[in-house]
Order: sequence, then structure tokens, then C-alpha cells
Amino acid sequence: MRHTPQAAPLVLDAAGMQLDRAQPLSEQIHAQLKARILHGQLGAALRLPTTRELARDLAVSRNTVVRAYEQLLSEGFIESRVGAGSFVARLESPAPAVPAERPHWNTPDTAIWARLQHSTIGQAHDGPPRAFRHGVPAMDLFPHAVWARLQARFWRRHAQQQLGYSETAGDARLRALIAAYLSSSRGLRCDAGQVLITSGAQQAIALCALALLRPGDRVAVESPGYRAAAAALSLPGARVIGVPVDAQGLQMQALHSLGSCRMAYVTPSHQFPSGVAMSLQRRLDLLAWAHRHDAYVLEDDYDGEYRYSGAPMAPLASLDAQARVLYMGTFSKLMFPGLRLGYLVAPAHWMATLARLRASLDRHSAIADQVVMADFMAEGHFLQHVRRVRRASRARRDALFAAWQQHFGAALPLPAVEAGLHACLPLPSLELEQRLADTALAHGVELARLSVAGANTALPQRPGLLFGFASVPPASLATAVATLKRCWPPLSADRLS
Amino acid sequence: MRHTPQAAPLVLDAAGMQLDRAQPLSEQIHAQLKARILHGQLGAALRLPTTRELARDLAVSRNTVVRAYEQLLSEGFIESRVGAGSFVARLESPAPAVPAERPHWNTPDTAIWARLQHSTIGQAHDGPPRAFRHGVPAMDLFPHAVWARLQARFWRRHAQQQLGYSETAGDARLRALIAAYLSSSRGLRCDAGQVLITSGAQQAIALCALALLRPGDRVAVESPGYRAAAAALSLPGARVIGVPVDAQGLQMQALHSLGSCRMAYVTPSHQFPSGVAMSLQRRLDLLAWAHRHDAYVLEDDYDGEYRYSGAPMAPLASLDAQARVLYMGTFSKLMFPGLRLGYLVAPAHWMATLARLRASLDRHSAIADQVVMADFMAEGHFLQHVRRVRRASRARRDALFAAWQQHFGAALPLPAVEAGLHACLPLPSLELEQRLADTALAHGVELARLSVAGANTALPQRPGLLFGFASVPPASLATAVATLKRCWPPLSADRLS
Repeated sequence: MRHTPQAAPLVLDAAGMQLDRAQPLSEQIHAQLKARILHGQLGAALRLPTTRELARDLAVSRNTVVRAYEQLLSEGFIESRVGAGSFVARLESPAPAVPAERPHWNTPDTAIWARLQHSTIGQAHDGPPRAFRHGVPAMDLFPHAVWARLQARFWRRHAQQQLGYSETAGDARLRALIAAYLSSSRGLRCDAGQVLITSGAQQAIALCALALLRPGDRVAVESPGYRAAAAALSLPGARVIGVPVDAQGLQMQALHSLGSCRMAYVTPSHQFPSGVAMSLQRRLDLLAWAHRHDAYVLEDDYDGEYRYSGAPMAPLASLDAQARVLYMGTFSKLMFPGLRLGYLVAPAHWMATLARLRASLDRHSAIADQVVMADFMAEGHFLQHVRRVRRASRARRDALFAAWQQHFGAALPLPAVEAGLHACLPLPSLELEQRLADTALAHGVELARLSVAGANTALPQRPGLLFGFASVPPASLATAVATLKRCWPPLSADRLS
Repeated sequence: MRHTPQAAPLVLDAAGMQLDRAQPLSEQIHAQLKARILHGQLGAALRLPTTRELARDLAVSRNTVVRAYEQLLSEGFIESRVGAGSFVARLESPAPAVPAERPHWNTPDTAIWARLQHSTIGQAHDGPPRAFRHGVPAMDLFPHAVWARLQARFWRRHAQQQLGYSETAGDARLRALIAAYLSSSRGLRCDAGQVLITSGAQQAIALCALALLRPGDRVAVESPGYRAAAAALSLPGARVIGVPVDAQGLQMQALHSLGSCRMAYVTPSHQFPSGVAMSLQRRLDLLAWAHRHDAYVLEDDYDGEYRYSGAPMAPLASLDAQARVLYMGTFSKLMFPGLRLGYLVAPAHWMATLARLRASLDRHSAIADQVVMADFMAEGHFLQHVRRVRRASRARRDALFAAWQQHFGAALPLPAVEAGLHACLPLPSLELEQRLADTALAHGVELARLSVAGANTALPQRPGLLFGFASVPPASLATAVATLKRCWPPLSADRLS
């Protein structure tokens, strides 16, 4: 007599099944049977008890068992044979040597993975703004009620039509409004066909990097400079090289000495983090350099609207007759960073390709925010808000410098700023930088370290502290300066230098 | 006698300046002087007329000219010398050989640029949903009012605290809610520390590609398959190779014959676009393959909630004892695509690195949408909505098949679907595919071509049509089928094969 599983199948013993009566029973039966099958404890072709038998053994309703079996059946763990009952499915190589513990995942061996281990980007600040958080605007002045009303209107009017996948390059009306804004307010003539909506300036940088750089290409960045830009530029395997910045901006001598470079990333309106505005001569020299080297210039105009003496400077891109400059901006510093809306201005005939690249990264930006931003601009709220935050930021800058003068005086001058949202105090050593920042934080005052915020290259890190002055009202700034005076050791420029 | 510009400067002749009295005058004066300086028409050290003289010559107010001069001064185009007036700044290499016309930008010479020329991804559909748009859920059932109310509450309550830069990995509460949802509803045990919020599943694929693939690595994708995934996977210079799909899912024989691969991208719950569910045997085989090749499996569970017979199948990742599977999902098919929220489930100790990569791409997802999505889940709206759209999608599927049976009958059977949001009708030729799709569109019926929607590799393209059935009510589906019957030439399975 042949003894095969089919002929005389073993029957599952329900004895080992423990059910928690407080939890869904059917799911537990399903999960436990599935685990036993996967771990080979229930061999192929083993007959399962009938639903009636198992229900009796487990003291549950028959329907509960039926649901569990149906799920196992639909997932392929068991098979049903007419008139014979349910059997464990015949699976080859069931669960390749399943270990009891989940093994550790190996560390990926890509170059990018290794590089990211040493990165400090993407660390968010905790809680509501306080002095002297940098990189954020006067969000306390943002007209929440207007924005919420426009959002509500979007949901009332447009929702049904616009919730699907939409244009990768961005909402057509928003693109046109940004082009008009750049032309009239920033002196950069462009039309909607040259504007790509991005998820902040960060994505504009990443898109340019991925589209235009080859592995091994050299990219010049300002040093100290914006570390998140350096991280994006190195995505395609490019080599990011720091070029020192002086009081006129990027040092052209140092740039020339690099030899061939594919791209230069600059923040000409208000260099991050030093605060310097690039001089006209340097701008012209940089464009000439780009022409000579057949290189691209990425102009990140992240806070160009904030200029406190004279009108804002026109962007580098507006001087660019040779078409070397890719211009990017963001609403993060005019509206709020959590909005994640920015833009890239590029040649119109590049737009289709850039949009496809965007599509392969994340399709497009959330549609409701784009439509509401367009409404916010079209109805005049945006320009009104820009004027409001520019005025407030100037008042806050003045409050910081007045308080500084009062408490630290001429003994330790804070270098003046005519633009942007932060001041920068250079320090003689990284140890002092760390100590002052730590002491301040222990007393509730946030100060970013220049060596960290501006660290993006192999160049020596400059020590210093960043004083963001835009995010809190003047009184809070004055209080924070007084706190620093109290908690810091006595400091003076003489002793510091 | 030395004749130098300083000694006897030429003076600007205002004669050539044309002003449009309907436009801001100061801006025009500024722009025209700047253009002349940049184009070398006003040489270095040329003295400008006094503001009084120029105002008189141009018949404008003196303040108008003062503003223009101040702007030129702050931008560095002119210099002011006490007692001597204003002079064109001495700029070296002013505007490197400025041509009259903007030159054409060269085509970038990167591999990715060339590849993107042939891509068709990112093309959005126009207008509100209609039969048979695919890839979109029953957005007409989305509870707009609830969503708008939660949005309004965000702006009332949280705005001030949460508008800045936030956690790159995503809102902590949303991550925890997604982990709980996956554990309870999808059978995938995970915790918040393993969940990264992404801008749709597309970004999850792109992150895995950039983090885990080296240039030249081979990646297996289903063919026909999701073309946008193939585009993302090729971002780091990997080689994407198609593996045919049959009624059980990915053909393992074909996968084995490829030799070494770094990664396989699959849609096991409901293969896109064929609609096949990967069998349990294939799932186990795929995991064994990944173990043997030290390869990653990307599981895109884009519409796994939609299963019309039995409960949804548990994800491949839930069978994965060897920790080879990276799991990704999206709210696009349950909520609406324009939301751009998805998630990646990965090892907790990879999370910091993946978040830094995300930060270098675009920082993080918009914060309001994350908070509102978390509220939507926490207050029970989400599971309720999932049940609602699943029920509706099943009814819509039934309506499509009933109408199809009525009009095309057994002569041209539409292959049954037990999951997902579309059916797929295979056709014998690309010519017929094109003809039927064009005719349908001319009569207002949208049908995606399988050869386009599922084209992602060098494998032969399969002709066919995709019938998305979820986005419009049953009556619209019935009408659209009747339209097809009317406008198409007579078809039958006999003649088609």
C-alpha cells in the first residue's frame, strides 16, 4: 500500500493555537495558519480540519473560521478540493531558510550612501520660531485667514476637476503669475513657458544637477555656502569644490584657478551665509567665465526681495546675454517654508525635458497649494504680503542691531547687513563658536553655527554665529540679546581677534 | 594737455531715451541707462547729467530720476563722486561680447538628458475625469467638505508653529498612523520609525533608485509595466531590463536568465497594467531569488486595497523574512493623486540616510497636507473613505462589465478583473490599438494604449487598451461603452485573433 500525503493526509492539530479573545479572531486564525505554512510547520498537502471542526476546537463561530480560510485561499496558501476539504498548497522552496530573527539589512554600497553618512542636511528645528532662528521669514505676519479662505474656495469650486494628475511643469496660471512677478518686481524678463514650478528652490537645484551634470563633473560652490545645495549638486556623482567668498562675493581668482568646471552655484543677491551682495564687476566676470568654459551658472535668489537700502538688486540672470544662468527662487522666505513651492527659470525649449525629469522624481507639486498660491498672487495678497514682511524684517533687523549696540556696543560689533534675514558674527575659533552656541541654547536662544550651516566643501570651516532676525518680533530679539549678554562670558573684538 | 575721461568727461545725451508715459517712468529710465552701460554705449567714467538736468530733458519729476540713479548706484552701474556728479562705473570686460539676440542654449550632453528625449512620462490628462481614464480613483466621492474643514482647523490652530522647515522623514503622527494602518489593514507589521513620507509612490521609487543603485547596475522591471517607475529607476544610470509577465505575475524563468541583477521592481497585488495578482509561489520564488542574488525587491502596492473577491492580499513584504523588500504605497489611489502623499517602508536604521537623501532632493512634503492627512486618518474618515471607494469601484467595475456584455457580448470578452481600477483588453496589433483609441477619443471616450502606458523596456510592446472604471459613475461607464459600440468598426475575438 502506498502511503502518500494525498492518500492519508495528516490533519492540523489546533492545540497550539492561542487566541486573544479581545482581538479580531478571524485575523488571528489566518495569521497563525499562514505563519505555520510559511515556516514549514504545516507541510504541503496537509489537510486542514474542516471549518466546523476547527470552529469547535477553538470555540469560535464557524463564520470566523470560514473567513480565515477564504483569505488563505485567496492568497494561495491553501487549496480547496471538492469533496475532500482544504489542503496546504504545494509550494516549492517555501520561504528560503527562514531565520527566527529578521536579519540585519546590509549597508548599501553606493557612493551616495557613503556620502550621506557625513551629511547634516535636513535637520529641522523644533517648535515655533524663536530668536535667532535663521532661514525663516516673519511667519507671524502671514495672513492665515486669507489663505484658509482661498483654500476653502478651492475645495468648493475646483476640487472635482483638479484632484487628478496635473501638469508636471506646474499650474499654468501660477507659472504665468510668477513670470509676471519676476518681470515686474525682480527685473527678470521671462514668460510662463520658461517657469517650472518646483518643491522649493532645493528641488530646482536637484533638477539642474541631475539634468546637467555628469559623474565626475566639477561644480564650484561658494564657501562658506549653502550645504543643502552642495548635497543636491553631488547627487549625480559630480565633484563639488568650494571657492572662497570675500566682501565682493565669489573670488574670481580662486574660480579661475580651478580650471575647467561644469557649473557654478551662487547666491548673488545675498550670499548664504556671509550676507555679501555680489558686486557688479564680479557678476560680469562670472558670466564671462561661464561663457569661456561653456559652463552653467545656477543663481539661487532665495531672499533677493529683502534689501533694506535701495531697491532689490536685479538678478544675475537679467545681465545674462549669453544664456548661461539658470535662475531659481522660492516662496519659502516670502510665505513660509512648509509650503514647499519654488520655481526654476530655464530656456523654454528645455522645459519639456526638465518636466519629464521632475515627473520621474515625484510627478508634480500638490495641486491645491499651486491653485491657492495663484489666487493669492492674482488677488494682490502676495505683493501686499511681500511689502509687509520686508518692512517688518527691516524693523526686526534694526531692533537686533539696536539691542546689540546697547549690550555689546562697539566692543564687539555685529557686521551690518543691508539685505536678507540674518546677520553673521565671525569668531576666532570653532571651540568658541561651539561654546557660545551651546550656552545660548541652554538659555533658550537659538544660534546656528556658521561652520555647520555653511559647511559644504573641504575648505577650512569658518567659525561664527548666524543671527536670524526675521522670525520673531522686535521685543523678542531685544530680550534674546540681553540674555546672551547675561549668559555669555565677557567678549570683545580685541580679545576675539 | 592730457585728455582723460575724468578731466573732460563726455556727458550722456538724453536725446535717444524714449519713455512710455503710461508705464512707471523711473523703471524705464533705470532700465535704459543700464542697458546702455551694459552694451558699452555709455563708456566707463562717462559723466551722467545731474538729476535736475535729466529730469528737465525728459520732462519728468526730479524724484523720478533720483530713484533711477539710486537703483543704478546700489547695483554698481554708476558711481557717485562728491562735488563731481555721477559717473558710469569702471567695469572690466563689460558684458562679454553681448550679441543683439539671445543665443540658443546648447542641448545638455548628459546621458539622462538624451534618455528623457524619448520618454513619454508626465503627460497629464486634461479636464475633469471621464470614462475610461485610468490611474485615478473615485474622486467624486471624496469628502471635500470634511477635508476643507480639517484644513481650516489647521490654519486656525497649528499654523504658527508648523509653517517652518519640518522633519524630513515626515510628520511623526502621520508616520505612526500609516504604520498602524499598514499593520491592521494591509497585514504589514511596521512601526513609525520605518515609515518615510514621500511625495507619492513615485518619489519612493526615485529615492530607492538613487540610494541603492550604482551606475550600470541592472534592474528588472515587469514588462509591460509602469513606465514612470522605469524612468525613476534609470535616474542613477542603472540599466532597466524588462521581464515578461504572465497570468501568475513576473516570469521567474526570464528573471533567472538575466543573471545578476541589483533590484527587481514589482506590483504584486495588481500588476500594472496587466491586472494580474502575483501568485504565492512566484512571491516565494522572487524572495528566494533576491536572497540568492543579494538583490532588493521594490514592492509598489499602489492599489492593493482594491480587491473585489476575498480580502486584499497581504503584501509581498509581509512574507519577507530575509529583509529584501522595500515597500511603497500611495494615497493617490485612495484619496486623490493631486495630494502627492505616499510612503516608503524601509529598515529603521536606514531612515536617517534616506531622509538626508530626501532633504537633498526637496527637503520634505508640504506640512499642512501632512497634518490634515493625519487628522483625516486619526478621526476615522480615512478608513470610512477607503470602504466607500472600494464599494463604489466594485460597483463601477460591475457596471462596465455589464455594459460590455450587453454591447460586445461573448464575441469580444473583456478579461475579468478581481482587483484594481482598470481592465485591460488585449489587441492583435498596434495599428488597431491606435485606431480604436483615436476613434474613441474623437467621440469623447478616453482609452489609454497599453503599448504606451506599459512601455518601459526594449521588449516588444503589447497592443491593448486600458479601461479605467473607477473615476466616473456607473451610468457614464454604460454610456461610454454604448458610444464605443457605435463608433468602432465591428469587432469580434475571432477576427481579432
